[in-house]
Amino acid sequence: MNIVVNKQAIEEASRELSNWGRWGKDDQIGTLNHVTSQDVVNAARLVRTGKVFALGIPLDSNGPQTGLFGRRFNPIHQMLATGTDAIAGRQDWNKTQYADDTLMLCVQGATHWDALGHVFYQDKTYNGHDAKLIDSTGLNVLGIENARDKMNGRGVLLDIARFRGVKWMKDGESISNDELDACAKAQGVKVGRADFVIIRTGQMERCLEEDKWGGYAGGDAPGVKFENCYWCQEKQVAAICSDTWGVEVRPNETTEANQPWHWVVIPAMGLTMGEIFNVKALAEDCAKDKVYEFFFCGAPLIITGGTGSPINPQAIK
Amino acid sequence: MNIVVNKQAIEEASRELSNWGRWGKDDQIGTLNHVTSQDVVNAARLVRTGKVFALGIPLDSNGPQTGLFGRRFNPIHQMLATGTDAIAGRQDWNKTQYADDTLMLCVQGATHWDALGHVFYQDKTYNGHDAKLIDSTGLNVLGIENARDKMNGRGVLLDIARFRGVKWMKDGESISNDELDACAKAQGVKVGRADFVIIRTGQMERCLEEDKWGGYAGGDAPGVKFENCYWCQEKQVAAICSDTWGVEVRPNETTEANQPWHWVVIPAMGLTMGEIFNVKALAEDCAKDKVYEFFFCGAPLIITGGTGSPINPQAIK
Amino acid sequence: MNIVVNKQAIEEASRELSNWGRWGKDDQIGTLNHVTSQDVVNAARLVRTGKVFALGIPLDSNGPQTGLFGRRFNPIHQMLATGTDAIAGRQDWNKTQYADDTLMLCVQGATHWDALGHVFYQDKTYNGHDAKLIDSTGLNVLGIENARDKMNGRGVLLDIARFRGVKWMKDGESISNDELDACAKAQGVKVGRADFVIIRTGQMERCLEEDKWGGYAGGDAPGVKFENCYWCQEKQVAAICSDTWGVEVRPNETTEANQPWHWVVIPAMGLTMGEIFNVKALAEDCAKDKVYEFFFCGAPLIITGGTGSPINPQAIK
Amino acid sequence: MNIVVNKQAIEEASRELSNWGRWGKDDQIGTLNHVTSQDVVNAARLVRTGKVFALGIPLDSNGPQTGLFGRRFNPIHQMLATGTDAIAGRQDWNKTQYADDTLMLCVQGATHWDALGHVFYQDKTYNGHDAKLIDSTGLNVLGIENARDKMNGRGVLLDIARFRGVKWMKDGESISNDELDACAKAQGVKVGRADFVIIRTGQMERCLEEDKWGGYAGGDAPGVKFENCYWCQEKQVAAICSDTWGVEVRPNETTEANQPWHWVVIPAMGLTMGEIFNVKALAEDCAKDKVYEFFFCGAPLIITGGTGSPINPQAIK
Repeated sequence: MNIVVNKQAIEEASRELSNWGRWGKDDQIGTLNHVTSQDVVNAARLVRTGKVFALGIPLDSNGPQTGLFGRRFNPIHQMLATGTDAIAGRQDWNKTQYADDTLMLCVQGATHWDALGHVFYQDKTYNGHDAKLIDSTGLNVLGIENARDKMNGRGVLLDIARFRGVKWMKDGESISNDELDACAKAQGVKVGRADFVIIRTGQMERCLEEDKWGGYAGGDAPGVKFENCYWCQEKQVAAICSDTWGVEVRPNETTEANQPWHWVVIPAMGLTMGEIFNVKALAEDCAKDKVYEFFFCGAPLIITGGTGSPINPQAIK
Repeated sequence: MNIVVNKQAIEEASRELSNWGRWGKDDQIGTLNHVTSQDVVNAARLVRTGKVFALGIPLDSNGPQTGLFGRRFNPIHQMLATGTDAIAGRQDWNKTQYADDTLMLCVQGATHWDALGHVFYQDKTYNGHDAKLIDSTGLNVLGIENARDKMNGRGVLLDIARFRGVKWMKDGESISNDELDACAKAQGVKVGRADFVIIRTGQMERCLEEDKWGGYAGGDAPGVKFENCYWCQEKQVAAICSDTWGVEVRPNETTEANQPWHWVVIPAMGLTMGEIFNVKALAEDCAKDKVYEFFFCGAPLIITGGTGSPINPQAIK
Repeated sequence: MNIVVNKQAIEEASRELSNWGRWGKDDQIGTLNHVTSQDVVNAARLVRTGKVFALGIPLDSNGPQTGLFGRRFNPIHQMLATGTDAIAGRQDWNKTQYADDTLMLCVQGATHWDALGHVFYQDKTYNGHDAKLIDSTGLNVLGIENARDKMNGRGVLLDIARFRGVKWMKDGESISNDELDACAKAQGVKVGRADFVIIRTGQMERCLEEDKWGGYAGGDAPGVKFENCYWCQEKQVAAICSDTWGVEVRPNETTEANQPWHWVVIPAMGLTMGEIFNVKALAEDCAKDKVYEFFFCGAPLIITGGTGSPINPQAIK
Repeated sequence: MNIVVNKQAIEEASRELSNWGRWGKDDQIGTLNHVTSQDVVNAARLVRTGKVFALGIPLDSNGPQTGLFGRRFNPIHQMLATGTDAIAGRQDWNKTQYADDTLMLCVQGATHWDALGHVFYQDKTYNGHDAKLIDSTGLNVLGIENARDKMNGRGVLLDIARFRGVKWMKDGESISNDELDACAKAQGVKVGRADFVIIRTGQMERCLEEDKWGGYAGGDAPGVKFENCYWCQEKQVAAICSDTWGVEVRPNETTEANQPWHWVVIPAMGLTMGEIFNVKALAEDCAKDKVYEFFFCGAPLIITGGTGSPINPQAIK
């Protein structure tokens, strides 16, 4: 493909790739509908060694957030009861010794899913709802709670950085549909209907190695081209994920829209998206045994009206 | 067994069931060590129909918390950006239309794992650490992050309420080891090493049907007897879970300790415990197809130093 | 006056009492403009005995909030560092021994000011701004920060409960303009331009005596009649405050609007309003010495874009 | 004075300056006891022009915190209801149009008081309490709530930067007792019993002018010498405040203690301390009219068990 990315291209893609009504007017899960029970059974068959890879990053004050839009912050973990209290006898009245705690976090601040109500286009959400249904009380449609039992299936890693023979892709480098296909072919894996596709750019590993997140959250990044929306629709993937903050390449391929790929894949297609995935160990294992498919279990928390969910997805080989 | 529950019994059980050093002095995951890679492979083989059951309860203001110890509260979900903002043109400067949000919650406020640093005995944690390592900065040992890739394996439901022929057990009714065995036998399932055992009392279903949580969080409840600690150790289960707030029967079986079973299973044994599991749909399905085992995936969030994690465990049949 | 309260009456009052433009098109503080420097000087002269009354209620989990609109909650106070940590040696590395903490609260959850951007009428705020300027990022106009140095002046207590000879007024009992005047007269005090008027109904004292807040936050209450908006405008008061959740009588005097008095006094008049004031001790002192005027200092926190501020106003006699 | 600051000097000062028992064994407010009712009356007489100076800094994400001790953060302000919701008709069901919000902040994150339970010495708080009384539930003694009506009196500004003829003092520059006295003399003001003394170093103004806080919160700073504890005790001041993060000079005058002056003034003396005061406008006015005394009203929020309180103190001339 050779798309000039602009508002017209977005509009065209939105029209062409629209999944509105495809799974009924009440559908709340979009492309997760691609996954059938049989797909789950088949995916479980991919568990051959019992190796488990946790794809989340730690939730703590060392996270990537640097105040994006003046708002996002790293998780704040606070105690309600401590061992030091216990030792000092402050819990004796209760005949117990325990620790307790709270967590405050941005739902999309670390490894997470985007819910389908996270992005709108022309005041409309996926499946044609008015964006006003998403107000200060939360997402009254398309919240992440709808996907509570839908995030299990076949996972496929496309290790683009390794395919290119680099430690990590540079910010601003983009991935074409052809390259995704070529990478899959080189890896000996086929991407298709109902897959949870995970793309490795290496960007997170660079940040961790350099011990600074820099512009990771919201700045420039390697990622897929706008044309990727066509690829996802054609392949009928269940979800697309990456080790970056926003899957698509940054700087944006146009000045007319911020994150143009998002404008299409969420509101038009209802595509589930996973971000800030920690894939280093998984990728190393795949490179070693040449097996790039696995059972994927990425259940979200059931956050009523959530724009997404913090997660710790499991890749099980 | 016929144990008189008191401080002496707790001390005796703590001594007899201690797993300190069993998996090395640096071990942070206790009974999760029972699970081998082969167990994960075998467990995946239990996926036969592709049916998925989400065992979490929703994270919202309708949760069970009523201020336990004057501290615990239900999840607070707040928006950082909304569809109404987008419609009003307040996001135009950013060339995007989106919603964003935060969540503040008690880590153990809804469906959750207890980390091994959650409870101490005589100022010591599991594996002999000084409880002072658990201070206002969090759990500097035994935090839930250590279990990030360890919560996958064979799940077994023991549906005690159904075994008793009741809709739900009453508060204060206790479950003996013999009854667990008898229930397993009646269900045609065998509990053993590395299993994630889930006990259904029906208490949560009563609360949901009556539309009031009442004393669910911290009050009286049906649950296992103190003697259950011996059962868990003998069976070598990976974890034990229930549809109640604290697994064990309440009121406590003694006035000398609050939650005496907790005093033993966490600090002495290093047993992982899951609470507030939502098992209604799973139990109905098991009753129907008579299959009480399944693939269990209950990955915690990687909360650095967390006393546990909110979760939405998946039972996949 | 004898007003039939309905949408027409609201519209009429909004038109008649509008202060839009009165203090310039850029004005952000409305009736606080009534207070001149000389008023502050004069008010300071009212300090004769040096007695100080703190009019705030404690910020803790025993507050009045019960989840109004499913959202408001009582303050959540959490520690970041404790004495028990210090004793256990956990702060030794830092060569200090200290405690530190956080507070999360609803800005209007306890004793507080309403900012002028708190309520709108027909999509417009005070002084004619579009309500869209108040979005998820906060109040981009009319936030409480504008009043940072404006909350000092003459305070006047109108002790209606005592004037009526009752311990407290009952929920639903309303206060007419005539009664305010009669009460002032009986107290030997004159209400006028630039005053911070505080009305005592006794409702809070009933709640405290009965040790339950019940419907205090958002339920029925004694309070001023709708006609009070005319009284405030005529008297040119700087602010009006009460010991109730919302100053005006509840149930509402009409079914056509929720809190009809609010619809007028904030958006049309730009009247500052103080709520949940704790006036018991002050009222007792005033009854004793017959002096119902005092120096009032109720500085808000400078919450950028806040709909108000938690406060602990000082009445100094 | 010429003190070699070390642990011995701290111990000596703690012994010599101890106010334990001075105001009774149940005293919770320390040096605030210096303020009599007559002092409040006299202070009110200082109001001559009606000019008001708000000494707080804004509570928002632009605050000085940069994660001190990996914990402190700037205020997080979030909406619960917005004008954009109102315009979109999302509040119509409730027959109202309004905005509502929450605030989460570090109690000591911006302009604030330290409560007497904020710092301990040798496991003891002011007046001899065991520091264990300050646990995860808060300050069970010496919380800021005890000062709810005690923060009113005579304020005195000591403008050291101006006295030195500099725009601002440099980090690490220290202020001796002699200099405080000389400055007061030059300003024509006398510091004495019951005063709320505010010291201007200009550091905050440098940060604001340079538009970066840098090490303001917890790094190097100009400030008083350790010997200042003797000065405060001799003068019998009610409180001491400054435009810096911690009043005393940094780097610390010793490597044996972090903030050695704090070790003495809070636990031994029970001295109230105000930090991060915004004094630019006040100082300019004082320089102009040569009047360095004023009525001071700095009421804390009544945070039950708080280590302090965010404030917006008022200096009224």
